Amino acid sequence: MGLVKIDLGDRAYDILIAERVDLARFLANSNVCTRVAVVVTNVVVAKLHLSRALDSLRSSFQEVYVVELPDGEAHKTWNSLNQIFTALLKWECDRKTVMFALGGGVIGDLTGFAAATFMRGVPFVQLPTTLLAQVDSSVGGKTAINHPLGKNMIGAFYQPRLVVCDLSTLETLPVRELRAGLAEVIKYGPIADIGFMEWLEGSVDKVLAKDSSALAHVVQRSCEIKAWVVSHDEKETGLRAILNFGHTFGHAIEAGMGYGVWLHGEGVAAGMVMAAELSRRLGLVDAAFVERLTALIARAGLPTKGPVLDPADNAGRYLELMRIDKKSEGGEIRFVLIDGPGKAVVRAAPDALVREVIDACCD
Amino acid sequence: MGLVKIDLGDRAYDILIAERVDLARFLANSNVCTRVAVVVTNVVVAKLHLSRALDSLRSSFQEVYVVELPDGEAHKTWNSLNQIFTALLKWECDRKTVMFALGGGVIGDLTGFAAATFMRGVPFVQLPTTLLAQVDSSVGGKTAINHPLGKNMIGAFYQPRLVVCDLSTLETLPVRELRAGLAEVIKYGPIADIGFMEWLEGSVDKVLAKDSSALAHVVQRSCEIKAWVVSHDEKETGLRAILNFGHTFGHAIEAGMGYGVWLHGEGVAAGMVMAAELSRRLGLVDAAFVERLTALIARAGLPTKGPVLDPADNAGRYLELMRIDKKSEGGEIRFVLIDGPGKAVVRAAPDALVREVIDACCD
Repeated sequence: MGLVKIDLGDRAYDILIAERVDLARFLANSNVCTRVAVVVTNVVVAKLHLSRALDSLRSSFQEVYVVELPDGEAHKTWNSLNQIFTALLKWECDRKTVMFALGGGVIGDLTGFAAATFMRGVPFVQLPTTLLAQVDSSVGGKTAINHPLGKNMIGAFYQPRLVVCDLSTLETLPVRELRAGLAEVIKYGPIADIGFMEWLEGSVDKVLAKDSSALAHVVQRSCEIKAWVVSHDEKETGLRAILNFGHTFGHAIEAGMGYGVWLHGEGVAAGMVMAAELSRRLGLVDAAFVERLTALIARAGLPTKGPVLDPADNAGRYLELMRIDKKSEGGEIRFVLIDGPGKAVVRAAPDALVREVIDACCD
Repeated sequence: MGLVKIDLGDRAYDILIAERVDLARFLANSNVCTRVAVVVTNVVVAKLHLSRALDSLRSSFQEVYVVELPDGEAHKTWNSLNQIFTALLKWECDRKTVMFALGGGVIGDLTGFAAATFMRGVPFVQLPTTLLAQVDSSVGGKTAINHPLGKNMIGAFYQPRLVVCDLSTLETLPVRELRAGLAEVIKYGPIADIGFMEWLEGSVDKVLAKDSSALAHVVQRSCEIKAWVVSHDEKETGLRAILNFGHTFGHAIEAGMGYGVWLHGEGVAAGMVMAAELSRRLGLVDAAFVERLTALIARAGLPTKGPVLDPADNAGRYLELMRIDKKSEGGEIRFVLIDGPGKAVVRAAPDALVREVIDACCD
């Protein structure tokens, strides 16, 4: 079993990485009240993984309730959140109720934000069932819902008490979702650990074949890098922004296409190529590195080109969407760029250059 | 000018208490970005105090925007919150935008929660214009909105960067609102400072006549007591709950009558009598103290009896509403009781005894 510790003082917690984890065993040590548990999940995940989670939780908690939401990014909204709040209040849940997010990034972000704000905060546990959630979104305490005018615009920094990455849940993960999760894995190499990128170049086929030791390494190393970054900058005042490599372009793609049409990881994949190309045009990396990253993304079965969002003025539409990104300041878009392989910087770039990159990287 | 410091480490801030404060002077020292300010207020407060606030803010900030909401507790909802988010996104506000809450408790709670969750947190400043907000709700970082099933059920602990209590705004405060604010002032004596209660007994008429030095003392001493409590227990894991003296019954009154029918302070006033009476029946205080507190509440022009919420089973209705209070645990209602004048305890009480108190204290 793998273990990664997130070092955040009185908000420190563990990430457990294993197959067929028995939750009851770890909850005993996690210092939460075992009276009431509420599992939030979606209809697709519920069919696959809910009964095993419930078996485990029912042996630990006096009462266990379930909120089942529809599947998909389109439901990461106030409506779903309010559905959770109404259920919690009807069940007379109190401040010691423990919430469990059983699902992918949407369920984790939504449940985390519900836990952050229900009665001003109740404990919660992440049970990520997708690769994307296990390597990225369940770790680090970013919680949010979408607003019609922007993704993840409403949220909170709120840390879970425990994250349990059960690798066996990945067995049922559709290949498109596995690939989308790989985008966030690929991300860690260029920004922080070029050795990990090399390992991935040699192992991407094993990962796509769901080889269990390859998956275990992918999740473990990704969580270690994320844990290191988050423990140095929990609230994204500086360093943490590097985790958004590919995300500025990627969020524009997701929003521009309508949430859910491109998966988050797909937008990030094309976005990483665009951000790498922008880095090259600013003289920060060479063409060989951009080609190498593009090749890895292609081998993972992910898009290396962005979609055309507006045939009349495609670059203009991207710029408009990127200006409301959370990393913008005073209308100036802040890009995460690669400053030599394995190192990221956050900075602005001239609009004209960004337009060139968009024109070159979309079709 | 009065100054109270809230000692919360890297979230420490000042409360300024003065007449006709020039905001620009203090913002210069508050270490916020002075590019964009957004003032959230309501239509009633806007007519009275907005132009002066804007004069001051326009001399400090490059851009100043205003969100004007309808007046009243009925608007402390997700709808109002979303109206703020939509405005912020349309104006392309970023993480350095500073929000200002100009108004009473509703505006402060709502704006604070918007600031806590917009892009996972932007800085905000409280500009309380009611006695209740100046002595209580603007201080300490509790922010929230109401849910149809319970008051303040959705919220966050999120501290402002600065609180400015401009006593001159109280000149236009309707007398009913002034009295409601006094309920929260009266509260501080029984739970923490019996000397302050004695002073109030001698000065309540001056306060009701808006004598400026009496008001200055009321605000200063209330903030000092609240600051002391909050700095020892920011997130209400223990001590801070004593600030809810009268609120368990009071919230039931507000919810049971429909939000906005009884003002918060009016519910708290009747609730304090009920909590004091419960304390007496549990042998914690004598009848003389209950009479003394009841007399002070009456002299402040506040209700000393609760309303009948359900003629068929009034006590049952109170109990039902109190069970979803945030202080409940496992369905057990936690009451803030007076354990001798000037000292509070938080504990449960037998339902039968609570029923007796409700029967005795409602008409």
